[in-house]
Amino acid sequence: MDESELLALRRRIDAIDEEILKLLSERGRCARRVGELKQGAIYRPEREAQVLRRIAALNPGPLPESAVRTIFREIMSACLALEQPLKVAYLGPAGTFSEAAARKHFGSAPQFVSLASIDEVFREVEAGNIDYGVVPIENSVEGMVGVTHDLLLLHPLQICGEVMLRIHQHLMSLAPSLAAVKRVYSHAQSLAQCHEWLSRHLPDVPYVPVASNAEAARLAAQDPDAAAIAGEAAAERYGLTVLAANIEDDPNNTTRFLVIAKHDAAGPSGRDKTSLVCSAPNKPGAMHRLLEPLAHYGVSMTKLQSRPAKSGLWEYVFYIDVEGHRLDEPVRQALAALEERATFLKLLGSYPAAAW
Amino acid sequence: MDESELLALRRRIDAIDEEILKLLSERGRCARRVGELKQGAIYRPEREAQVLRRIAALNPGPLPESAVRTIFREIMSACLALEQPLKVAYLGPAGTFSEAAARKHFGSAPQFVSLASIDEVFREVEAGNIDYGVVPIENSVEGMVGVTHDLLLLHPLQICGEVMLRIHQHLMSLAPSLAAVKRVYSHAQSLAQCHEWLSRHLPDVPYVPVASNAEAARLAAQDPDAAAIAGEAAAERYGLTVLAANIEDDPNNTTRFLVIAKHDAAGPSGRDKTSLVCSAPNKPGAMHRLLEPLAHYGVSMTKLQSRPAKSGLWEYVFYIDVEGHRLDEPVRQALAALEERATFLKLLGSYPAAAW
Repeated sequence: MDESELLALRRRIDAIDEEILKLLSERGRCARRVGELKQGAIYRPEREAQVLRRIAALNPGPLPESAVRTIFREIMSACLALEQPLKVAYLGPAGTFSEAAARKHFGSAPQFVSLASIDEVFREVEAGNIDYGVVPIENSVEGMVGVTHDLLLLHPLQICGEVMLRIHQHLMSLAPSLAAVKRVYSHAQSLAQCHEWLSRHLPDVPYVPVASNAEAARLAAQDPDAAAIAGEAAAERYGLTVLAANIEDDPNNTTRFLVIAKHDAAGPSGRDKTSLVCSAPNKPGAMHRLLEPLAHYGVSMTKLQSRPAKSGLWEYVFYIDVEGHRLDEPVRQALAALEERATFLKLLGSYPAAAW
Repeated sequence: MDESELLALRRRIDAIDEEILKLLSERGRCARRVGELKQGAIYRPEREAQVLRRIAALNPGPLPESAVRTIFREIMSACLALEQPLKVAYLGPAGTFSEAAARKHFGSAPQFVSLASIDEVFREVEAGNIDYGVVPIENSVEGMVGVTHDLLLLHPLQICGEVMLRIHQHLMSLAPSLAAVKRVYSHAQSLAQCHEWLSRHLPDVPYVPVASNAEAARLAAQDPDAAAIAGEAAAERYGLTVLAANIEDDPNNTTRFLVIAKHDAAGPSGRDKTSLVCSAPNKPGAMHRLLEPLAHYGVSMTKLQSRPAKSGLWEYVFYIDVEGHRLDEPVRQALAALEERATFLKLLGSYPAAAW
């Protein structure tokens, strides 16, 4: 081993660290001055998204994009805290996917508050006790989170960001090994998502679909011959051992979270989404006519979700996500036309599309 | 608002980010070259501790020390992953304090593996399937973690780091509010640690000491008139609502974790600890005589913990932590003298003292 080269490399690393530290301090001073100038709505999700995308595009390596994003996520988080100390609430308890989503979006610097229900997250943000809330909106295994959809309709809050989080499925049981497993419980969608792994490793046992993965874990905790497919938190809650981890066939199993606040993203970031909820007149072809402006102005729809209306004023409401910011010209025009045709329309906010 | 100054600040921030990115990439290239030169034991805990301490000392502000540490923790984590992709195991499931400790020490870049028992963490590190294990060793509420002490004695692994993690206590219950709580269960030490809060907010209810905080939560889950004091994970496991968070009188309630590996810190970092386990001849004054060299050479003891020996060869073994690295001269001499007097002595490793 070349000790002198090693020493020279170490010295260079120390010098680099000093330069980075100086730049971080200058960045902190700039951020503080920005905070003084802006006074008020300080957090600009579109600006953060732009910085992260730009850094990812400029990154020459050898550090991978994910590492560079993580480092800059923390740099921005620390600088934002100088402008404005943030309080961020998520659906608790600590250690759940919601907390992971909140930290992925906001970095380590904010004060994080774990609340007992999605409803409470909405109420605390609306009351001004909390600046930002992070709530699950849909899950590729379990589908839409109904309560979040209902609360978006009822509360005057806006969506200012989205977070995508990878979710892993595990096989868990009281049984000591795979060989002792005589049946597998899980939600039908989870069974389907782990089909390849199951047919390779447990080809001869029955797969029993149940209402939810949590229910599957509960059943497995009462039956030493059974296993459940569920997330890691379920193994903890029901005292089960994980016999095989990350058994999902599709590694892209994700949950989508929304960041809610009293404001949305004030301007476009270059790759945005806009969410809205609306209702159509209750007659044949109304829905088709309602969506026609989106096609006319070339605005892509990324989600259309119908849901029985709770209020009684309409039979159904439709949750729609489109690509683009509400200030982008085609989106602006399409939304104006859509509003004319809808019996009801509420804009839920524009925000940068999740990039990682 | 001065738009032109705001624009100038944004431009400067963008330029700073580009400079930081260039420096990060150069640091990555240096780290990769260090990895090529070293070939083998790549992770140097003493070097990481030095870098973090140096950065904290040089930090001119306005970013707080904690923010600068978090950013450099991630920078070093990413660079180390270029030298050597690490596998780090902790006592699972995910979302526990052990995972938080592992991430606090190693940053985000390693592959983290959650294992079901402390025993399994030791076995997987010893088998070479895992590079580093993170295990709890003592807790200011629940005292020592016996199983970790026993495994340190039995396994040929070394301690290469320590992590201190703040632990919070919460009052949790099935009851809807504090007013409905008729009794409080918890471990006696937790009751003592929350004494001030309890006497202010629940002065007239009985406090019932039980075997552990988890047991307290289990009891509270069966009795809607009762509350438990325990950590947040217990609220999740037993479906209890947190009525009051962070009620510990002493905000310094911490758990200490050890990082175990096939090696310890090869050299001193400047602020180190050395752990050992030994036994003394079973006669009056033997323990006093055993420790005498530490006093003689001016080596401070930070922990002395006796424990019944499992092996049958000795009645008791003593776990001792001292300040300094085993290569620091006074420590080296004190250990040599101590070894002569002990009936048995095993060096468990030298490692940088936790700094944050």
